[in-house]
Amino acid sequence: MTVQLQEGERLDDLQNGYQIIQNENEFCFGIDAVLLGWFAKVKPSEKVLDMCCGNGVVPFLMKGRTVDAHYTGLEIQEKSVEMAKRSVAYNNLENSICIETGDVREATAKFGAASFHVVTCNPPYMIGNHGATNEHQGKAIARHEILCTLEDVIREAAKVLIGKGRFYMVHRPFRLSEIIVLMTQYKLEPKRIQLVYPFIDKEPTMVLIEGVLGGNSRVNVEKPLIVYDKPGKYTKEVMNIYYGLDEKENEDAG
Amino acid sequence: MTVQLQEGERLDDLQNGYQIIQNENEFCFGIDAVLLGWFAKVKPSEKVLDMCCGNGVVPFLMKGRTVDAHYTGLEIQEKSVEMAKRSVAYNNLENSICIETGDVREATAKFGAASFHVVTCNPPYMIGNHGATNEHQGKAIARHEILCTLEDVIREAAKVLIGKGRFYMVHRPFRLSEIIVLMTQYKLEPKRIQLVYPFIDKEPTMVLIEGVLGGNSRVNVEKPLIVYDKPGKYTKEVMNIYYGLDEKENEDAG
Repeated sequence: MTVQLQEGERLDDLQNGYQIIQNENEFCFGIDAVLLGWFAKVKPSEKVLDMCCGNGVVPFLMKGRTVDAHYTGLEIQEKSVEMAKRSVAYNNLENSICIETGDVREATAKFGAASFHVVTCNPPYMIGNHGATNEHQGKAIARHEILCTLEDVIREAAKVLIGKGRFYMVHRPFRLSEIIVLMTQYKLEPKRIQLVYPFIDKEPTMVLIEGVLGGNSRVNVEKPLIVYDKPGKYTKEVMNIYYGLDEKENEDAG
Repeated sequence: MTVQLQEGERLDDLQNGYQIIQNENEFCFGIDAVLLGWFAKVKPSEKVLDMCCGNGVVPFLMKGRTVDAHYTGLEIQEKSVEMAKRSVAYNNLENSICIETGDVREATAKFGAASFHVVTCNPPYMIGNHGATNEHQGKAIARHEILCTLEDVIREAAKVLIGKGRFYMVHRPFRLSEIIVLMTQYKLEPKRIQLVYPFIDKEPTMVLIEGVLGGNSRVNVEKPLIVYDKPGKYTKEVMNIYYGLDEKENEDAG
């Protein structure tokens, strides 16, 4: 199938058998999406909802690891939805990835309560208009809590998940305390936390967190994930994540 | 002054000008106390309360960094209190370190509300009798929540602190979620978190946390603190902490 690229668009290889369309003038995915797609554990036959899916990168990444699951992407920006749908068609994944236009705040109303085994989200990180809001409206919505807040995401995730369902999110460490308090409030007990440090001697720039609906309060903080060995050179672990090998598979491969 | 050592006791050099008495048959301080004494920031003339002070090691460590502050240690085990008092006398610190016998749960009743600028605590880590309770009663009380819970510590710390007062605690990462939820509940907003990893590729074994009474919800997660370069060999950073140099001082020194 030939892909219909529009102005500013390019086809990016996810190194997992799939390609997605991105527009250089819009919000493009970063390492946070790649790490979320790797951190989230999906089992065959599960139903997965990715909230704030943007161009759909996280479902495509998860699909590369767990083929036999069904993925739904929810996105409020029509332009991103349209682009994500073309990526789905290009990869012939209409049967396993479904992209829907909609507001995170109405996710339960749209999909029904207790309707997913897994929810993932790479939400806007910045509080309201805190910091320099991007003049580009689409990018601003992707980065700032203009159309949905952290609480909206967590509340809706808790509602659309089945009991013991898992929630995976990537966020900024400066909001870790709020994240834990809100997840606990909505019974999405934090079970696994991994801090992502750009270098071994620097503050973390991302946090990956897994919550289990109705879990107990014991949390596992994982080993540090270090991104770079030196400027511009990814660590072996991050290279493995980018190329779709998790550490265990890599060890098994020798 | 000659020190009166009893059976099983030895005098340990804290490398900061002070020596403390420890009893090999009782609970002896570990790296967690050393890291807490380093992580806690005390300003001259402040009043500091160390809850669950045991043999008094944390006040002695803080005193080594901030001489002109007043330290109170609160400990429920009479044997530890008596030993800590002899250490205070041996170092001629009766004017700046005061050890009191008492129950953490009654700290506010004993000292009054809003009476300290800083509270530190290296509490028992284990929930109730979870895991193998130490047969030695004194050690069991130091390690398990037999005489006080995490909530007791946080509630009383919040009460005895003045507005914007700081709380510093070392604990186990598996309880991070509970710690953050309880601190937030008692308005001790987490402001600084540092994970302590034994090795760069292992899960953290300790978490250091600072809360500010009435602070806002933005938290700073700090660079990872790695304990060992290889088995038995401390990293340069931990060596500096043991020898009383913090990194900045060390950098300044060349």
